[in-house]
This record gives sequence, C-alpha cells and structure tokens, in this order.
Amino acid sequence: MAQDEMKTKQRVPEPTLRRLPWYLAYIKLLKGKGETVVSSTQISKVLSIEASQVVKDLSFVKIGGKTRVGYDIDELAIALDSFLGFTSSHKAFLFGVGSLGAALLQDSGLKQYGLEIVAGFDIREELDGTFINGIPVYHISHYPAYQRQYGATIGVITVPVDKAQEVADQIIEGGIKGLWNFTPFRICVPEDVVIQNTSMYAHLAVMFNRLNTIDH
Amino acid sequence: MAQDEMKTKQRVPEPTLRRLPWYLAYIKLLKGKGETVVSSTQISKVLSIEASQVVKDLSFVKIGGKTRVGYDIDELAIALDSFLGFTSSHKAFLFGVGSLGAALLQDSGLKQYGLEIVAGFDIREELDGTFINGIPVYHISHYPAYQRQYGATIGVITVPVDKAQEVADQIIEGGIKGLWNFTPFRICVPEDVVIQNTSMYAHLAVMFNRLNTIDH
Repeated sequence: MAQDEMKTKQRVPEPTLRRLPWYLAYIKLLKGKGETVVSSTQISKVLSIEASQVVKDLSFVKIGGKTRVGYDIDELAIALDSFLGFTSSHKAFLFGVGSLGAALLQDSGLKQYGLEIVAGFDIREELDGTFINGIPVYHISHYPAYQRQYGATIGVITVPVDKAQEVADQIIEGGIKGLWNFTPFRICVPEDVVIQNTSMYAHLAVMFNRLNTIDH
Repeated sequence: MAQDEMKTKQRVPEPTLRRLPWYLAYIKLLKGKGETVVSSTQISKVLSIEASQVVKDLSFVKIGGKTRVGYDIDELAIALDSFLGFTSSHKAFLFGVGSLGAALLQDSGLKQYGLEIVAGFDIREELDGTFINGIPVYHISHYPAYQRQYGATIGVITVPVDKAQEVADQIIEGGIKGLWNFTPFRICVPEDVVIQNTSMYAHLAVMFNRLNTIDH
C-alpha cells in the first residue's frame, strides 16, 4: 500500500466513506471558483447533511478546521484525495470483457481515482492478446501467472451473472483481496476479502419504480 | 409508461427494490441449471437474507408462492423482470460524452435492463453529429429540440463534477423526470424529480479503506 494511505489504518464507518467524496467534489467546485476557505455549515447547507455530521466525518481526515474561519480548501482537497486513496495507484484486473467490461476498460477516468486496470481477462480464446484502450486482454487461464507478475490487489467483476461466484472464487484463489462486483449476483467471500457491489441495475429498478409512482 | 408497469403503482421500499434484482439474478441462475421451483428458504440461505424478509419482498411482486412447494421459477423470473421495469423500454439521454459517458454508450447491456439510451449530448462542438456504438451524439444546445422529439424520461449524467448541477437544471427544464447521476456531486432536484446516484468513486474509496484495514 502506498505511503500516504497509512494514516487511514483505522476503520472508518462506511457511511462516512461514502459522504467524503461528496465533500471533495463540492470543495473542488469551490476551488475552481477561486474560493479559499469553506465552513462546515456551508458544506452542510449545500449537501443537505447535518453540520455536526460534516464535522464528525471530516474529523477522520485529521485536518484542523479553524473553528471561526473554516477549512482551508487547498489543504482539505489534498487531504481528502489522499485519505480516500485516490492519489495512490491500486492495480486491478478486470474479469469478463463483455459489453460492460469493455466499457470500463475504455473509461480512463478510473485512473484519476486511484484505480489502474492493468489487464482484462475473458473466457473467449479470440480475445487473448487483444488490446482495449491500450490495456491487454488475456485468456482467463493466464490469470494465475499474471497475478504473480503484477500483484493486482483488486478484481473488477463484469462476467455474466451465472459465472460471478465461480470467477470470484478463482480471483480469490489467485490472491486478490478486493472485489468490485458489477454483476447483480450477491457473491459470497471469505472474511478477509473485501467486496463492494456497484448494482447499476438495482439503481435502475429503483428509478423505474419511482418514476412510475410520482405524481405527474 | 408501459402497460406491464402499471401494477407497480405503489411505493415499494427502496431496500426491497435493491434486493429484488439479487433474487432475480439468483433464480435465473437456477433456471439455467434446469431447476423449476425455488423456496424462500433457499433464496434466504444463498443470499444471506432473512427468509421472512424474502417472503415480504416477494409479496410486493404479487406472485403466489405455494407455501409447501415454493415459487415457480419461470413465473417468478417473468414477474420480477416486469415488476422491476426491465422488460419495458425507458428512453434516456446521456449528458457528457467524456470517458465514462462514452463507455456507457458502448455498454449495450443496459438495454437488456430496460434502459435505451437514444442520444448523447456534449458541450464540445466537434462531437456534434458523431456516433458511438450507433448512438448519435449532439451538441448540448440541441437538447430541447430532441427532447420534444424523443420524449426521453431519463437523463444519465456523466459530465464533469463542476457542471453536474447546472446540467441537471437544464435537463429538468427540458422535461426529464428521472436523473441517473454518475458524478460524485450531490445534485439538488425538485420534489417531483427522481434521482439515483451511482457513486462508483465512493465505492472505490470504501474498498481502498477496507483493503488497508484488513489483517494481512
């Protein structure tokens, strides 16, 4: 792990970790407008979060807000970026170079948030040795060898839903400790493995239902 | 709205709506294996969700589980697909054809879940009139006209974070009622507008932190 993440060696509550990127996005916006100082009250108002919660969340980042003046925007942006792990490079492999998988390989933006996808793997022989956005794609059988070579810490899972558990087991067997699951399948992992689910389709389901129930 | 969604005219709790796609993914997996019946206990065990919760969630879908036998897999899969809105076509526009936006246009998989992105919009003149994956990209100034033509119900937001609120206001002004926000910015919307946030970077932040705090 990179040096600048060492200070995050405490278990920060998940809701806090989910809110901190919102604060970061907002203060970067202010920075772009030439602002230099921001108060917790201001963040609270714009993001509709209790001011006391904002203060508590930011206390994890170990940056002193001058009570009367507020936080120095430059300092806070740098501290948050680093605290959230966005300034380090986390090597990742992507499994399942289908429609969504290929799309994620195309998304160079992930690198700016600390995720460097160094290779893709797929079951289809014809993809072996091809490149997407400069990233090599290999047959899944080569994964163990490349894992030893690259030492990836994160596996992005974009395989078909009926392969999700099987592929996750393989990834973990290879030594990867963090899974980013984009399939709608609820993958079971051992306790020492971290999993994050990005359930795009569940978000769609919520939106479709809500659109159907709002008063027009 | 499509006919088969009419029955969803009740407000289903968000946690239920987020779990239902997991059940659907699991029973489609069983279906692929040739199974025909599934019990709530079985779903409960595999997905680590209380059986009573599974029964309650599925009760919204208005499908009768025969208490002793369980649910007919075919019937439940069809009912869930329809209930979740995945079998209807919801027309969407995508705003911000940058790295992530272009990637989402490439992802034909969204169509299988009921989201049909019919056009992309961007501020860059040079993208006007181009195509990605067969989907036309227009300059943002053409949005009001195309909105009148297509009547899109959903706006996918993949613009830079400092433009998120401004673009959202424009989208809403044009008549779109559902926003799918991929930026880390917390967008404010009027009460009659539905917003879903897919905070990919927040998920990354949680994973980075957890990877840093597990015992190696």
